[in-house]
Amino acid sequence: MSKVRVHSIAMSIDGFSAGPHQDLDHPLGVGGPALFDWFFPTRTFQRMHGAGDGETGLDDDIAAAGFENVGAWILGRNMFGPVRGPWPDDAWKGWWGDEPPYHVPAFVLTHHPRAPIEMTGGTTFHFVTEGIHVALDRARAAAGGRDVRVGGGMATIRQFLRAQLIDEMHVAIAPVLLGGGESLFHGLDLPALGYACTEHRPGTRAVAHVVIRRR
Amino acid sequence: MSKVRVHSIAMSIDGFSAGPHQDLDHPLGVGGPALFDWFFPTRTFQRMHGAGDGETGLDDDIAAAGFENVGAWILGRNMFGPVRGPWPDDAWKGWWGDEPPYHVPAFVLTHHPRAPIEMTGGTTFHFVTEGIHVALDRARAAAGGRDVRVGGGMATIRQFLRAQLIDEMHVAIAPVLLGGGESLFHGLDLPALGYACTEHRPGTRAVAHVVIRRR
Repeated sequence: MSKVRVHSIAMSIDGFSAGPHQDLDHPLGVGGPALFDWFFPTRTFQRMHGAGDGETGLDDDIAAAGFENVGAWILGRNMFGPVRGPWPDDAWKGWWGDEPPYHVPAFVLTHHPRAPIEMTGGTTFHFVTEGIHVALDRARAAAGGRDVRVGGGMATIRQFLRAQLIDEMHVAIAPVLLGGGESLFHGLDLPALGYACTEHRPGTRAVAHVVIRRR
Repeated sequence: MSKVRVHSIAMSIDGFSAGPHQDLDHPLGVGGPALFDWFFPTRTFQRMHGAGDGETGLDDDIAAAGFENVGAWILGRNMFGPVRGPWPDDAWKGWWGDEPPYHVPAFVLTHHPRAPIEMTGGTTFHFVTEGIHVALDRARAAAGGRDVRVGGGMATIRQFLRAQLIDEMHVAIAPVLLGGGESLFHGLDLPALGYACTEHRPGTRAVAHVVIRRR
């Protein structure tokens, strides 16, 4: 059964998944990179960015599991890039260079139409202007029975949670305080939306891995 | 150096330290007791409530540490009891029976004056109507060089954090979702108030113990 999954979202103790004052110099917000102290050293991340072998262990197992059996991705526009409003041209092709780490179709939510972009390594970016339900239908069809991963950002994940469309979501709770930024769960009544925490494991580094699922 | 400490506060993944719909039947709110699945089985809790030996291990070590070197307590009125408004009489003497688990002076914040109550076992409840700074001054004086523990509830702890009066605070992050209730940190910019997370340890049971301290 094809699932809709979220993985490797990190959250501070005070509930933020990105720090305050996000901009091009601080894509994760001020203090935000500390959320990923568990993720950046993993083999999964290091190999993805061509930076060497990285660490194995539970944190890496969890990071790697996020890529298993994924047949399509859904990305919010801000996760795809910093361009706002209508696309001025076709110059921006994501943050990830010629070969993005997706290797499957990736559906980008936007209010502004744009032709698909085929990248090296199997990733094709499709631009969806009709909202999350249509994006999910298209992603499911493209995934061919495999799972759909909703990559982010937080506004997109919150929209999918509110619509009760996420089946499974992994969050790493990092031992940092951010004080502001993008709140992950504030204002969402997750039990009322059908969610419960079904897994909890301490990570290799100082983090608590939790999984929430729809009952 | 005498410190102001908070211990054994539990928080759900979605940021609540008590569940919704608190009342006499649900003093921790609906779903709230699950926050303390790590705490209730400990020897510290079980012996305090005369219920047997309880479990030892890291969770118990942490629960026990919360009582070490404490010379005075500060309690919010709602933690002391359910009575609201002026005290109708002297009948209510706390939730804990004749021998409360404090065994030192405990200062109760209230807007309504009341004479001190001396209980069995060393606890005396003092009622402070002049606010948190006066309560802290009196508690420090009574503690005789030992630490002051701020017991709760959440509104009281938030008030002390906002006034930058807490030196050290232990929080157990529990793998539950509550969906509503008393938010522990929402609206507090803890880094701006001088706080950082300085410790992180997985507990014996499924919980992440974190400590925040004032720099």
